[in-house]
Amino acid sequence: MRDMLGREKALSVEDARQLLGTHLPAKELISLRIPIEQSFGRVLSEQISSPEDLPAFSRSTVDGFAVNSSDTFGATEGMPGYLTVSREILMGERPDFTLTRGRAAKIATGGMLPGGADAVVMLEHVQYADKDLIEVLRPAAPGENVISAGEDIRKDELILSRGTMLRPQDVAALAGAGITSVAVYEKPRVSIISTGDEIIPAGSPAEAGKVREMNAYTLSGLILAQGGIPLRKGIVRDVYEEIRDALGEALRESDMVLISGGSSVGTKDMTAEIIGSFGPPGVLFHGVALKPGKPTIGAIVGGVPVFGLPGHPAAVAVCFEVFILDVLRVLTGREGTGSSARRTVSALLAKNVSSDGGREEHVRVSLKEEGGELWAVPVLGKSGLIRTLVKAEGTIVIPSHVRGIEKGERVNVLLF
Amino acid sequence: MRDMLGREKALSVEDARQLLGTHLPAKELISLRIPIEQSFGRVLSEQISSPEDLPAFSRSTVDGFAVNSSDTFGATEGMPGYLTVSREILMGERPDFTLTRGRAAKIATGGMLPGGADAVVMLEHVQYADKDLIEVLRPAAPGENVISAGEDIRKDELILSRGTMLRPQDVAALAGAGITSVAVYEKPRVSIISTGDEIIPAGSPAEAGKVREMNAYTLSGLILAQGGIPLRKGIVRDVYEEIRDALGEALRESDMVLISGGSSVGTKDMTAEIIGSFGPPGVLFHGVALKPGKPTIGAIVGGVPVFGLPGHPAAVAVCFEVFILDVLRVLTGREGTGSSARRTVSALLAKNVSSDGGREEHVRVSLKEEGGELWAVPVLGKSGLIRTLVKAEGTIVIPSHVRGIEKGERVNVLLF
Repeated sequence: MRDMLGREKALSVEDARQLLGTHLPAKELISLRIPIEQSFGRVLSEQISSPEDLPAFSRSTVDGFAVNSSDTFGATEGMPGYLTVSREILMGERPDFTLTRGRAAKIATGGMLPGGADAVVMLEHVQYADKDLIEVLRPAAPGENVISAGEDIRKDELILSRGTMLRPQDVAALAGAGITSVAVYEKPRVSIISTGDEIIPAGSPAEAGKVREMNAYTLSGLILAQGGIPLRKGIVRDVYEEIRDALGEALRESDMVLISGGSSVGTKDMTAEIIGSFGPPGVLFHGVALKPGKPTIGAIVGGVPVFGLPGHPAAVAVCFEVFILDVLRVLTGREGTGSSARRTVSALLAKNVSSDGGREEHVRVSLKEEGGELWAVPVLGKSGLIRTLVKAEGTIVIPSHVRGIEKGERVNVLLF
Repeated sequence: MRDMLGREKALSVEDARQLLGTHLPAKELISLRIPIEQSFGRVLSEQISSPEDLPAFSRSTVDGFAVNSSDTFGATEGMPGYLTVSREILMGERPDFTLTRGRAAKIATGGMLPGGADAVVMLEHVQYADKDLIEVLRPAAPGENVISAGEDIRKDELILSRGTMLRPQDVAALAGAGITSVAVYEKPRVSIISTGDEIIPAGSPAEAGKVREMNAYTLSGLILAQGGIPLRKGIVRDVYEEIRDALGEALRESDMVLISGGSSVGTKDMTAEIIGSFGPPGVLFHGVALKPGKPTIGAIVGGVPVFGLPGHPAAVAVCFEVFILDVLRVLTGREGTGSSARRTVSALLAKNVSSDGGREEHVRVSLKEEGGELWAVPVLGKSGLIRTLVKAEGTIVIPSHVRGIEKGERVNVLLF
């Protein structure tokens, strides 16, 4: 896959993603049943149909008077319709009467319509002529200001599909239909192994030649935000047996393994070799036409996706976006798109950005509003600088066949 | 604030928001110190400056050879520069030598530069002429392929401001600077009281005249997503003393109180009266030129913001967006904008939508991609239908002075 210079023959991003998609095994995900109170952000593992009509009866959507709509036809302010008000419908009660012609019943928003009524006249369109007599100033059409039985959700209608990541209103719909527990998928466990003789824990004092573990934190946060459980497996030295032991343990315990760092030439090859030693299909790609992120390793071992990630902080974020996010969607059981998947804003590019071409380039940008427009401002700096990620709010993608994007062009910013 | 018809004099959304802003007291928020592992999504209550230079020493960003850049000036493939390679720099170690002129040292990505070196020549731009002799095929500028000491973050430089909601990469920057715990604000507690004689718990069987509690779930999920702690206080009947007791308890226990429902005319006035009975400033507005969401009550009681929300599911979501979100930002301690605040996508409107004018209208929309464009498709249906919220991915806003938006116009969709 790579030539002597390690670049020109790097796989395209599309080819790498396709390789992953082809080899990722279709696994049965594990379900568990939880109360809806705990289901926000969880992914449904069952189809949810309504056990009943919602609402179960016709309700008023306004404060006013329940009427037989034909009693109001032709009513105007000059020629009002007169109706006798003999009853008031109490909230939460089933009316114990049927509305006869020429009569109206006082009703509040949410009240149940009595038999004989098919519309509600708003309070604002009525005047009292007498204590029990109202003037209706506008006609009400059949069904006006009413939610009919089953109008919201019909019995047996599909409310939510398997694979939906539940939003607040989705959970409300479940509650409305009387569903108090749902089956959701277990959260996938993602192990993160930091490798490198130069890596020390965040709690260690500064030391010449050493840097503190950072990428494991970026990855943990990204995994959490996507509904996974990050398992930080600590720091492993660049020693074949130690990395192999750590990977072996991680493979047994988790649904995906991320090996961060191991950024020296020898180590990168060693990481690929170690992954390969666990059996087929093993390493699918090693080197991608992606900037930053070129030395990424993508692999499947015993059905478990394994990624070897570059050491540069910005490269880690890009690899997550480009490769890991999709795999995590599969492992969390999410299907379809939906609002949780949309994280782009449209903006105008504030400065020219150039690209060497030949590889997909992800450029970090911050956002600013100016002149009523949203502008994407490229964040300059090497991909090895964590500050470029901290200053940025997202990235724009320059496809591999494009040599750059000019100031003022419209771009899609993928938000962090 | 309201005339006889309850509409024309309703406060504008801007005025209502301004009233809230003016009366919301500036409270000292409580801080706690937590390990950075638990800080994702939390809001910083301190300014974070770096205790040291990051990196602490000059590092290579590529695999190659550390050189004195002046030794490579003018090097080309035809006229390479020759350098003797006498040393290799091991990862994680401080080089125990100084590079003299005419010499190079093998170095891997992340390795520490020796004294005397100011640049790194990439492996790809070098050929071995002999075992210990390399040909440098391109010149290296001073600083090329090097991250200098302090280039990422300088000692005492502000890394993250008070009020930042921590993202994965922000936590990584903390780790990189050796900061393992941070002070964050306590999450605000938001009580939710459902009122209405017609409301029954989600677990109850269907009953004529009754509907199940739904809005408390929508609100809980929205509060959780914004970094608050929802406290569901159950369902209270439309009885003055019962609502007053529930509100009194909630005021003692929480940083904000949401009263959902109480949608009948009498109840709405009663809710406002009860809120007012707890003392000044009390009710700030009751009725807003907003659709859906007209009957919203906004109040401050003893420094605690209190909202009386309409019963319609879609109105609840709109009121949260328009009023509660901003208050929650203040209560969570968030400052400035930043990516977590940006939740809009640009789309083309797929159908004409009309508006009566005179009030700000929020229209639910779903999103679809077609012809390379993102389209916002209005979700039709009464605001009393939860299905309209489940089908929608966001809303578009029609300002009060606009009578409608035409198909094909560009709109900003505020994502749920």
